[in-house]
Amino acid sequence: MISSHNIDTFFNPNSVAIVGASNKEGSVGNVICKNFLKGDYKGKVYPVTLSSETILGLKAYRSVLDIEDDVHLAIIAIPAKAVNIVLNECAKKNIKSCVVISGGFSEIGENQREEELKQIVKESGLRVVGPNCVGIYDTYSKVDTIFLPEDRMGRPREGKISLISQSGAFVATILDWASGENIGMSKVISFGNKADVNYSDLIDYLSDDEKTNVITIYMEGVGDGRKFMRAAKKAIKKKPIVILKSGRSKAGAAAAASHTGSLAGADTVYSAAFKQAGIVRVYTPQEMFDIAKAFVCRKRPNGRRVAIVTDGGGTGVIATDFLEDYNIELANIGEDTKARMREKLPPYCSVKNPIDLTGDADVERYKIALNEVLKDENVDAILLILLFQVPTLEDDVVQRLLPIIKGTEKPIFVISAGGEYSRKKLKELEEHCIPCYQSSSNGVHALAAIMDYYGYIERKRD
Amino acid sequence: MISSHNIDTFFNPNSVAIVGASNKEGSVGNVICKNFLKGDYKGKVYPVTLSSETILGLKAYRSVLDIEDDVHLAIIAIPAKAVNIVLNECAKKNIKSCVVISGGFSEIGENQREEELKQIVKESGLRVVGPNCVGIYDTYSKVDTIFLPEDRMGRPREGKISLISQSGAFVATILDWASGENIGMSKVISFGNKADVNYSDLIDYLSDDEKTNVITIYMEGVGDGRKFMRAAKKAIKKKPIVILKSGRSKAGAAAAASHTGSLAGADTVYSAAFKQAGIVRVYTPQEMFDIAKAFVCRKRPNGRRVAIVTDGGGTGVIATDFLEDYNIELANIGEDTKARMREKLPPYCSVKNPIDLTGDADVERYKIALNEVLKDENVDAILLILLFQVPTLEDDVVQRLLPIIKGTEKPIFVISAGGEYSRKKLKELEEHCIPCYQSSSNGVHALAAIMDYYGYIERKRD
Repeated sequence: MISSHNIDTFFNPNSVAIVGASNKEGSVGNVICKNFLKGDYKGKVYPVTLSSETILGLKAYRSVLDIEDDVHLAIIAIPAKAVNIVLNECAKKNIKSCVVISGGFSEIGENQREEELKQIVKESGLRVVGPNCVGIYDTYSKVDTIFLPEDRMGRPREGKISLISQSGAFVATILDWASGENIGMSKVISFGNKADVNYSDLIDYLSDDEKTNVITIYMEGVGDGRKFMRAAKKAIKKKPIVILKSGRSKAGAAAAASHTGSLAGADTVYSAAFKQAGIVRVYTPQEMFDIAKAFVCRKRPNGRRVAIVTDGGGTGVIATDFLEDYNIELANIGEDTKARMREKLPPYCSVKNPIDLTGDADVERYKIALNEVLKDENVDAILLILLFQVPTLEDDVVQRLLPIIKGTEKPIFVISAGGEYSRKKLKELEEHCIPCYQSSSNGVHALAAIMDYYGYIERKRD
Repeated sequence: MISSHNIDTFFNPNSVAIVGASNKEGSVGNVICKNFLKGDYKGKVYPVTLSSETILGLKAYRSVLDIEDDVHLAIIAIPAKAVNIVLNECAKKNIKSCVVISGGFSEIGENQREEELKQIVKESGLRVVGPNCVGIYDTYSKVDTIFLPEDRMGRPREGKISLISQSGAFVATILDWASGENIGMSKVISFGNKADVNYSDLIDYLSDDEKTNVITIYMEGVGDGRKFMRAAKKAIKKKPIVILKSGRSKAGAAAAASHTGSLAGADTVYSAAFKQAGIVRVYTPQEMFDIAKAFVCRKRPNGRRVAIVTDGGGTGVIATDFLEDYNIELANIGEDTKARMREKLPPYCSVKNPIDLTGDADVERYKIALNEVLKDENVDAILLILLFQVPTLEDDVVQRLLPIIKGTEKPIFVISAGGEYSRKKLKELEEHCIPCYQSSSNGVHALAAIMDYYGYIERKRD
């Protein structure tokens, strides 16, 4: 089987059949139908059910075999014992891709049923995502097989972060959270028991996807490790991969086994393999998205020397500590640069790195400091720690700093902790694809990750 | 000098003089006047300035000596060179406490000026917070010397977390952030160069303050370490202390020295001292408040055995990993408890810890699991990881679980990641003083901190 064969129809199907479609408010088959019918999905929709003649006003079919037209994708949300029967019908109908939402397979010890499913895949060339999963969400095509209703789980906007996950709960909370944080996503896949479509298929596919700048993965167990590593090593040359691998602890591994039937394996083996492949390993969803956001912006630092520019001395001190934690250097600002800043800034500002513009800073001071530091060849990246709260900082600070931040090849990460006013300002910056963080630790960690990745790529090129 | 002598007038003054009061919109002296005049502060306000006859409609005085009545607190926001003259006048007027906002002392090398200030304190018995600070914010009395206007920096609601900080920037961002997160605060103090009032004074004072359940501290350098340790060891028996100590790294220590003139000292010495005194050390503001929130609720676990109850398998696995990171045990649920749960729950639910109620859980399942687990003597605390997004979970889930959560002595920490709907639900829980977190790592860390603290107290009692 060719690895990424027939994967595209999961994300860009011209027509979908929803097997288990339902009129019952809030049921799985009902929510999925509504996802496709609310007007954003452009293809055709065929509800399939035995229980009703029409679903949400559409004609319902008793079997996929009754549908007159071609079907690109079948979504199956029916009791487990009927799934394989329907899959055989899908194969007969020549449907290429199926998402099996239904649980009741190996995760509860029904291994025989899962083996049968695999046999159908093998014989027919049908591709299956699942079983025991929430399936697919594509922010562009609006394919959305996730059975959590929109008033409970927000859907994020279009973006360049794709996510592969074994756990449906993980996908649901991440999508919801990303929508709340205004983080853009691209293709999101939860494949549960991964009886067929697996990490390597999806990594292959996403590495060539123009709408994906970074591949994030939630993993409990890898399955075919060799295949995974081959796919990852190939993909990493094109774009970064960030993985949250759970089941690290003994108790966690046992929990993973009873969750998706995954064998977690020795954690040190995973860490070593990830490192060898240039994969960024993270431990929390927050870290995953802090780092993914940084990768989306695609600015590449040439080294690990950072200048901190701030109007809050204390926050500069905290950030400096974190640089050392991540093996990043506090840049040695050139004497010329310092002299020029000293000439233009008030005498009580500190032109030594971290550069402290003090609590009565205005935009002009920031412009002076940024322009000088960006010209300095001793500086590879900048942490801009803005306390928007100080009254002397003009309200149009973002508009006035944007040309400088966008006009440089050096990555500038913005850090600002605070409430409503500060968050509004960060949002303005984020709309221009500038990596923003609400704490130094998160921002520095993300900066370290992109330095690690580009360092790896550089070494591999040699 | 008695350590916490005259500290209370900083927080509960019947009358304040604002030296450097101003009509100039947005200026330091203007914002501080407005803070006191907007109606929430109950005492008298006396603006002092040479530049105007009236300030914001109030009669202005040319000197504190001209004020007819007693003044409890003077707030001084004038150029540095005039500060000591005014302090002498305050002493003459028999004012007991002064907040010196003005910078321009040891932090820029003006050591002589700071020595003079210290001499005045010594001779007069005047207590001084500052110089070079943002001063005081008390959510109850509404003393608010912070010169950042309310439309830029939110003020948090009343609560039981107090904060002592050297850095004004730290205080500003924390207050603003806490207001955005709806975290209640009590007394907040930034003392900058700490020429007089210091950690030990404030720790002594806050340890007896009924409106403070937990003392949080941002520290660059401690000053008199022996005095600090004495105060901390005494206070810790009454309430927990959480410290973010920056200047950990070599570069960070250097930055701290030029920021508030602090000598950071060897970081390992601080860590050892904190551990010896039972102080919780944190590294980020997020950790500080995650942990402080947990302490505010004051439920005390008897040991380190935790049950996880969730409707999201994957999130249960992630949480299990973090338990091991913090040396917390995944409780061995009793066979009786498991049998009773097995009897009442659907067969596909996992009654083994982490207890997985699966993606079609309803409130009834949660009630069954919580009630059984709470009765189990093998369980000291519960992590309740709620995926509010699943459609089967009824909308009144919080109301129906509240009696169980509030009715037990065992701490129950709630974890829920997500967007708008989930956050609304967490807010409902937080209003009942239940520790809520948006990620497992944060919640488990906080749980570990309270286990560490109460374990320390227990050992010291022996």
